[in-house]
Amino acid sequence: MKRIYLDNSATTPVDKRVLEAMKPFFSEMYGNASSLHKFGQEAKKNMEESREKIAEIINAKREEIVFTSGGTESDNLAIEGICFANKEKNHIITSNIEHHAVLHTCRWMEKQGFEVTYLPVDKYGLINPATLESEIKDNTGLVSIMFANNEIGTIEPIVEIGKICREKGVCFHTDAVQAFGKIPIDVNKYNIDLLSMSAHKVYGPKGVGALFVRNDINIEPIIHGGGHENEIRSGTENIAGIVGFGKAAEIAKKEMKKEAAREIKLRDKLIKGVLKIENSHLNGHPVKRLPNNTNFWFEFIEGESLVVWLDSKGIAASTGSACSSKSLEPSHVLLAIRLKHEQAHGSLRMTLGKENTKKDINYVLEVLPEIIEKLRKISPYKGKWK
Amino acid sequence: MKRIYLDNSATTPVDKRVLEAMKPFFSEMYGNASSLHKFGQEAKKNMEESREKIAEIINAKREEIVFTSGGTESDNLAIEGICFANKEKNHIITSNIEHHAVLHTCRWMEKQGFEVTYLPVDKYGLINPATLESEIKDNTGLVSIMFANNEIGTIEPIVEIGKICREKGVCFHTDAVQAFGKIPIDVNKYNIDLLSMSAHKVYGPKGVGALFVRNDINIEPIIHGGGHENEIRSGTENIAGIVGFGKAAEIAKKEMKKEAAREIKLRDKLIKGVLKIENSHLNGHPVKRLPNNTNFWFEFIEGESLVVWLDSKGIAASTGSACSSKSLEPSHVLLAIRLKHEQAHGSLRMTLGKENTKKDINYVLEVLPEIIEKLRKISPYKGKWK
Repeated sequence: MKRIYLDNSATTPVDKRVLEAMKPFFSEMYGNASSLHKFGQEAKKNMEESREKIAEIINAKREEIVFTSGGTESDNLAIEGICFANKEKNHIITSNIEHHAVLHTCRWMEKQGFEVTYLPVDKYGLINPATLESEIKDNTGLVSIMFANNEIGTIEPIVEIGKICREKGVCFHTDAVQAFGKIPIDVNKYNIDLLSMSAHKVYGPKGVGALFVRNDINIEPIIHGGGHENEIRSGTENIAGIVGFGKAAEIAKKEMKKEAAREIKLRDKLIKGVLKIENSHLNGHPVKRLPNNTNFWFEFIEGESLVVWLDSKGIAASTGSACSSKSLEPSHVLLAIRLKHEQAHGSLRMTLGKENTKKDINYVLEVLPEIIEKLRKISPYKGKWK
Repeated sequence: MKRIYLDNSATTPVDKRVLEAMKPFFSEMYGNASSLHKFGQEAKKNMEESREKIAEIINAKREEIVFTSGGTESDNLAIEGICFANKEKNHIITSNIEHHAVLHTCRWMEKQGFEVTYLPVDKYGLINPATLESEIKDNTGLVSIMFANNEIGTIEPIVEIGKICREKGVCFHTDAVQAFGKIPIDVNKYNIDLLSMSAHKVYGPKGVGALFVRNDINIEPIIHGGGHENEIRSGTENIAGIVGFGKAAEIAKKEMKKEAAREIKLRDKLIKGVLKIENSHLNGHPVKRLPNNTNFWFEFIEGESLVVWLDSKGIAASTGSACSSKSLEPSHVLLAIRLKHEQAHGSLRMTLGKENTKKDINYVLEVLPEIIEKLRKISPYKGKWK
């Protein structure tokens, strides 16, 4: 059976060119970048070239890129790092649709005595910049708003938020794990101070990410040790991973425009087709949306069963995000856009990638209606709910 | 020119068998282990098999292994995790020869209001268990003593320390980054509660490590998010890296005994040969020593020049540890074993690996005396110092 992978927001396959770039750094050029000898120096040189490539795609400077183990660590470093560096500014503003890497870090900061404001969103998942502005206080040290949502794909008004934060002198962090490499990002134009990235969402390897930290921003490390990464993140650098991340960024920069246009076409075809199914609804904004994201809810359907059925037909999709797919709780994002519990439980996310074709979409549109019909016949919700 | 790598304590080449095991997990079996579909499930299955392999080599249970991004993160997680989980027990005991990943984390805990006792060591770098016992107080929540030192290779009296900690009811963490896979470790027999490991020191990839956390130990995460790794460490798991780490552990378990015996022979040959050089001295214990470690200091010599000269002859070695090799400060470990600043600056670490042969040692013993003679002729220390 052909397997169709439609879960590219959970993770992506490593691009063959990325893997080729990585290969020499396992068993040949394996030096520790801190070592003085040639093995070490060639590792360091390649690491710095990758740093440059990642900086370029977001219009940052090379030295503003801090390598981490992934998007989650980047989010933790940004939030804890800013808070611990400036404890007097003990108020954080974030939103209630952030990734758990942001939300749970904010909850932890509350335990450490910080105050956190969780902004609501509208039915599309959009933050209102005016509301955000009104919540800024003298002691607000950090605003953390995601660039684009991982579940429903909504792209937030980052330009407006950046402008407000800069005017008010508040540090602005954005979790760009889903946006990076997919839509244009300019940290200077958008007044972003900290930006989280992850390699494995853009056809790079798992286990490596980065945090952009604007040069004038004072941040405290959360992982202490040998003082790597300009004293911000200790631990022997994952050179093969970093080289792969650099290559992935280079490819994304070159191919983004064309690939986004291609995916938007497929996305809109998929959305149009799925919405033909009776009692189906789109989650997220119809236009301010990541090129690769679709998210629906179906009446009288349990999303987990839907994912399992699709899987049996060779289609990999998800309900909620991968990170919370093990949990029985409905998605906090879907609840935040005013879905009821049962509605949120009936959600399906299909996220496109470079490998998907029109043929894949056609297959999904052939298979999905049948599965939904089948599931609705045995739906336990049907009686309870309408 | 043949390149001889004698910096295996800084990092090791990835074993070809490890790389082969990893390869399918980049572009083929690339699922996110949290995903419900087949891509996700095959990732999860392979991750759990690796966890089992790593558990086996230290006689732990599978569910006691938490994957991290490396040794440094494991040390941070162990120390911060225990401290934040039990804030009343606000006293830590460690030693002054720990890796910076432990020392700097302890310093950070001091800033958070914790009290830290830094135990001295004898001239070989050994902790005195009786001294440790006498420092334990009612509020001591954690003892963190490394299994073996990364610079001088001294193996600490872990059995005695574990026994004391268990009797006193104090949690015992050991940074085993250098010992793991090289000498036998049994977390149960040794009464270890937390143990840090790193893949890239045992022919696995960089960017992945693990922390053994005994089942009954309560620990708080330091990286918050989706609740991966049994709620102890969030972030999409680095499957390729984890599979590589598992394979490296499997190989180490099988080959450790034979390889350790082989390396001890080479090590002792190297030590014997180097000590023939006039005014040269061995750092660390002559017998209680990692199979692959040698560390010397040479009178009238500046270690950094020595490393650069050796490099020009194709030999990769280090002065101090890789993690502090960029710093101008003399090694804190060498100062702790009572070397003077100038003596510590004249140190050379050569650490053996699987790829080294008797021929390599012969070459070093041919080249090193000449370089030392040359350097001594131009030594700025000579006048000042004797």
